[in-house]
Amino acid sequence: MTVYLVGAGPGDPELLTVKATKALASADVLIHDRLADPRIYDLTPSHCVRIDVGKRAGESLQQEAINDLLVIHGRTDGNIVRLKGGDPYVFGRGAEEAQKLREHRIPFVVIPGISSCLAVPAAAGVPVTCRGIAASFTVVTGHRRVGDEQATNWEALAQVGGSIVVLMGVEERATIARRLLQGGLPPDTPVAAIRRGTHADQTVIRTRLDTLHATPLVAPVTLVIGTVAALDLSSEHWTNEVELQLTAG
Amino acid sequence: MTVYLVGAGPGDPELLTVKATKALASADVLIHDRLADPRIYDLTPSHCVRIDVGKRAGESLQQEAINDLLVIHGRTDGNIVRLKGGDPYVFGRGAEEAQKLREHRIPFVVIPGISSCLAVPAAAGVPVTCRGIAASFTVVTGHRRVGDEQATNWEALAQVGGSIVVLMGVEERATIARRLLQGGLPPDTPVAAIRRGTHADQTVIRTRLDTLHATPLVAPVTLVIGTVAALDLSSEHWTNEVELQLTAG
Repeated sequence: MTVYLVGAGPGDPELLTVKATKALASADVLIHDRLADPRIYDLTPSHCVRIDVGKRAGESLQQEAINDLLVIHGRTDGNIVRLKGGDPYVFGRGAEEAQKLREHRIPFVVIPGISSCLAVPAAAGVPVTCRGIAASFTVVTGHRRVGDEQATNWEALAQVGGSIVVLMGVEERATIARRLLQGGLPPDTPVAAIRRGTHADQTVIRTRLDTLHATPLVAPVTLVIGTVAALDLSSEHWTNEVELQLTAG
Repeated sequence: MTVYLVGAGPGDPELLTVKATKALASADVLIHDRLADPRIYDLTPSHCVRIDVGKRAGESLQQEAINDLLVIHGRTDGNIVRLKGGDPYVFGRGAEEAQKLREHRIPFVVIPGISSCLAVPAAAGVPVTCRGIAASFTVVTGHRRVGDEQATNWEALAQVGGSIVVLMGVEERATIARRLLQGGLPPDTPVAAIRRGTHADQTVIRTRLDTLHATPLVAPVTLVIGTVAALDLSSEHWTNEVELQLTAG
């Protein structure tokens, strides 16, 4: 019996690791979040029991119920795959699940995944670090959960000097921007707001910190705040140009 | 002609993404850093030309020379894979390479990789985020490079309230610890120092911020600083215990 806590990456099945595909192929039970691409579920064998514990119309299983499911199935003989979007330890509550498994002495293995905090900016042409521009990056959730005592000191974060990646920050963006400005970030600090990052229908809106509050955005959005957000390293647009020229010629 | 800027992950070939293995399998030219596991090079076809631009006895090709190599090969008809450890945009100078390719209008695709900044702590049983403990994490390089004007404000970072992951920080650890303490982090802040993380010979040393300077460490080490560094979610040790009991019984 082993429970695999597996990161599924940002959506594209090809961004799974080889190790994750092997874990899925050996799964007797799959306990999964609602993922961006359901083809990933099909990597499990036909006998695999699939349990969807993801959000549905705003509802989701309580974390405690998910932990119990893991313990119950983890005591059986099979291979249990707990599949989570992105990386299990980046805001995925994977730490709580691992803690629970450890308490119950159920062996588990963590298989890291491509986190959207890196893959989404990259897909939008924004590198989170860049020599001479950003020697650090901070990944922070903008979502305030009940029971989360650990608050972010946005004013201090404004002084650190690196890139800031905000996940789940759309609703709180006015507050976040105000506090970063109060902390000393310049009003014209570039912001890239990436919706459906890494997906075919990805959109990128470029704005600045002082106008972020008024920029129309619909969740889910990844915000990148800092000088790197002005970079556009994607080759997509001018590749299209080149192709158009070739076609026209 | 396309250049693939590919993240190889932390070492284990199974932590490559499926997309990365496909890029390698289609490579006509492989331009690679010195990776932790050379089996990854063997995923290229037999006709593939391999160019090692990684560090060797302290020497490495100048970045400008690597950029030129990418442009020269990027103008040919083949598939060029530029393979880098971890993720291309996390301290890998991938941003500079992408910028150069863009300047020369050479089409390129970035394939993200599992960054050691997440995978190494996870392998040591340390989650970088944990509900109620850390709502953010900052990844920062401790290495000072000539020409890097962008300095980290460690005193401000001490006030942010999240986990801190320091890559390449062994040599500067006395300075880093002193500045974080000056910034207000408590002397007993937990520190996990992980050497050869994710590898079979991985070692984890647990210490505290006020004794970090005196803790004997040999590079390369990943430092995790913050309350999460006291967690040990790995199931390895007690799995061994269970096995020993079974054997003894």
